[in-house]
Amino acid sequence: MDTQPLYQRLADYYRRAIQSGALAPAQRMPSVRTMVRTHHVSLTTALQVCRRLEDDGLVEARPRSGYFVRPPAGPRLAPVPDPDIRRPIDVANYVGIHDRVANFITRSESQDCKTNFALAAAPPSSYPHAALRQAMTRALRMNSAVLAGRAPAHGHPQFRTVLARRALDCGISANADDLLVTHGCIEALNLALRAVARPGDTIAVESPTYFGLLQIIESLGLRALEIPTSPQRGISIEALELALRTQPGIRAVVVVPNLQNPLGCIMSDEDKQRLLQLCTSQQIALIEDDTYGALGDDGPSLAIKHWDRKGDVIYCASLHKTLAPAMRLGWTMGGRWHERMAMFKFAQSRPNEPLAQIAVAEYMSTKAYDRHLARLRQQLRQQRAHVAEAVARHFPAGTRLAPPAGGMLLWLELPEGTPGMTVFERALEAGIRVAPGAMFSNSSRYDHFLRLSCTEPAVPETEAAIRALGEIVAACAP
Amino acid sequence: MDTQPLYQRLADYYRRAIQSGALAPAQRMPSVRTMVRTHHVSLTTALQVCRRLEDDGLVEARPRSGYFVRPPAGPRLAPVPDPDIRRPIDVANYVGIHDRVANFITRSESQDCKTNFALAAAPPSSYPHAALRQAMTRALRMNSAVLAGRAPAHGHPQFRTVLARRALDCGISANADDLLVTHGCIEALNLALRAVARPGDTIAVESPTYFGLLQIIESLGLRALEIPTSPQRGISIEALELALRTQPGIRAVVVVPNLQNPLGCIMSDEDKQRLLQLCTSQQIALIEDDTYGALGDDGPSLAIKHWDRKGDVIYCASLHKTLAPAMRLGWTMGGRWHERMAMFKFAQSRPNEPLAQIAVAEYMSTKAYDRHLARLRQQLRQQRAHVAEAVARHFPAGTRLAPPAGGMLLWLELPEGTPGMTVFERALEAGIRVAPGAMFSNSSRYDHFLRLSCTEPAVPETEAAIRALGEIVAACAP
Repeated sequence: MDTQPLYQRLADYYRRAIQSGALAPAQRMPSVRTMVRTHHVSLTTALQVCRRLEDDGLVEARPRSGYFVRPPAGPRLAPVPDPDIRRPIDVANYVGIHDRVANFITRSESQDCKTNFALAAAPPSSYPHAALRQAMTRALRMNSAVLAGRAPAHGHPQFRTVLARRALDCGISANADDLLVTHGCIEALNLALRAVARPGDTIAVESPTYFGLLQIIESLGLRALEIPTSPQRGISIEALELALRTQPGIRAVVVVPNLQNPLGCIMSDEDKQRLLQLCTSQQIALIEDDTYGALGDDGPSLAIKHWDRKGDVIYCASLHKTLAPAMRLGWTMGGRWHERMAMFKFAQSRPNEPLAQIAVAEYMSTKAYDRHLARLRQQLRQQRAHVAEAVARHFPAGTRLAPPAGGMLLWLELPEGTPGMTVFERALEAGIRVAPGAMFSNSSRYDHFLRLSCTEPAVPETEAAIRALGEIVAACAP
Repeated sequence: MDTQPLYQRLADYYRRAIQSGALAPAQRMPSVRTMVRTHHVSLTTALQVCRRLEDDGLVEARPRSGYFVRPPAGPRLAPVPDPDIRRPIDVANYVGIHDRVANFITRSESQDCKTNFALAAAPPSSYPHAALRQAMTRALRMNSAVLAGRAPAHGHPQFRTVLARRALDCGISANADDLLVTHGCIEALNLALRAVARPGDTIAVESPTYFGLLQIIESLGLRALEIPTSPQRGISIEALELALRTQPGIRAVVVVPNLQNPLGCIMSDEDKQRLLQLCTSQQIALIEDDTYGALGDDGPSLAIKHWDRKGDVIYCASLHKTLAPAMRLGWTMGGRWHERMAMFKFAQSRPNEPLAQIAVAEYMSTKAYDRHLARLRQQLRQQRAHVAEAVARHFPAGTRLAPPAGGMLLWLELPEGTPGMTVFERALEAGIRVAPGAMFSNSSRYDHFLRLSCTEPAVPETEAAIRALGEIVAACAP
């Protein structure tokens, strides 16, 4: 069954035509009216097709003339290749990832930067902060004792109800009581790991993975075992299976199946189910971090939790990336560990303050939230295309890209042997912040990688910063 | 040097006169004008004296007639005696305190209650929630991106500055950079314990102690060692010294030196210094919980941190009891573990949301905060006197009280052998919530104790509830 929206199928149709050369560079695209006539679609759909092709950098609008196929963007970036899953698995080492990450952050913030490609959150202008402020002010007016009363156990009922309803978008059928509100996804992941493992145990993670996860694992006295992960398909289930057979003491696997950080890939539905079956059969917990899921170019994808019948999946998510970075609202559905997680939450920080929950619940129960998400997705897609193109133009040959399926991140492989740390340092001196690959692994495997966040609007300064960065990379490359 | 305020010295003078019988029951007190003339004090001071004596239940105002010495309040409660510090120290057992406490809470909340003597937070009417709501609304208006921006590392500078200034009230001279903002005192205690100990280590605590602390210790895989604690003078430093000599693996001691929960006592300055010296010489951390400190009848007392020169004290505090129960704002000064605590905070929940911090900083930088605290202290003193008197009238002979030096809690010893759990259950059936002594220890030492929170205004219903509770206790007593 073809579940893609109509506009997207049509956009793919034209994409193929452009890539095959049927529509040549600088050629004028069929007009919107022509599309309507030819494909029997609405004007709205035809406009969506054009905008999509524009976001992907395939066509450009010229005022009063319509859309034109763009000239090829200089040298195209080759994709980052898949890892060799037969490689020996990195032994779970305690290597002080926290210090390493903390040093990067301290170093990063020691210098004023014109351009920030390191921060994985869009600027305030990308979020509906005026509407949220209004909702907050209303919540204060309507709930006179909200600051002096008690914080409801497990989170505010109104907020949990909205979250449960919104979870349907990624295929999760839950009710408010199944949810526990937390201080961000970070606290949810902490509770999940504390619930399933004890100090000294091993946790399987994707490689590369989000540095925050490595920090949590280290801070809890656990060991991270890095499983090879494909930039296209996500974690290698074969490699995980092998690890479970050969390494003792693995209690859980943590994955970001939708828009992996830093890779940006989405696992296929089939792989999601295979991974779940493996975890169920091996009786380890599957911890699913879905923080970025709603930012997929084609909307949210199914969560692994969708297929979970036995409570083997701990689902964790938050609103930092999608709605309000500074409100620190997250939540979890802990499956068979839920009670234990609630116990740890109570002992660790007590229930969350109610005010923010009430305000956000109000906002999220309206269509305005959907409109905001659609806008944010489109904006990020455009910005990503802009940065990726600039990288293709200005980085040295041999630079490769893991093309993401949405979100705000680009994962770049620099020519083999380029010292990412030196690039990081020199970029900083030039007023440009990037996240070096070394932050995303306990191994040295990604020392010649960079993660670029495409969170700022596409302006000429961005292109200039990428050009400067490209020159630094070229100078550092062996 | 006598540092007591004038009105208090004068109140003590009249208290002694009443207790000695020089001023007999039902006798008229010297008028306010007489006091002014006799003692050369201002009218304000004289009025403060009368109000203080009234709060303490020693005199009562009769409209248009002045103040009269109250008749003795029935049988007086004897004080809870000091523990035998030569008793064998309770071995640190993992006995599932979390389940026990969780059961109490679930049982407590399973039934609608008319009277709540279990909750250690005053009702919303006792807190300046209108002013806080206004501050919050203003903060929203003045900081347009406060919800969508970034949360400042370690806490909002404005809030940390005000807290540092307010810390002077308990003798701590710190600057904003020495403070880390947390999700309540609970998170601060978690971070402190994680910073100083590893699973399996032992933490010395007061006995009885706050059940939340026992839960944290258990949830972190640590062991609690309960040190005998005097209802008048606080933790026995001799007993702690003995424990440090004889028990291996003690990493820290956690104390509530000002208004201990549940005892309500304040350690003397001398004992505070002796305790610090002991910890310094034995190289264990001294974790100081000062959540209740500002609610002392005579204002805040000195924190142990006041004498800390080497960073051996981790100071933890919050605003739940004093300002806004549902805002969950706490903070810590971690001494030589500060960096490590900040690392755990970052890995555990990231920096706190800025909005609440900005609003509270504004409120706390005005005199309104001082006025609120003075009001709250007076109100709690009155309410405590009211409940204590009712207990003296209605509880069976042999009931004893640890008379607190402030705050909202009364710690009662029922006649030896009275099963506190049965009292708890029967009270619940009668619509009355109490906190049974078993919640405050891993041992069975306090099974015949109750903690009563005096957070509700003194109304006839309170007296009726205490009478009903007294009948239940009498029926359960052996």
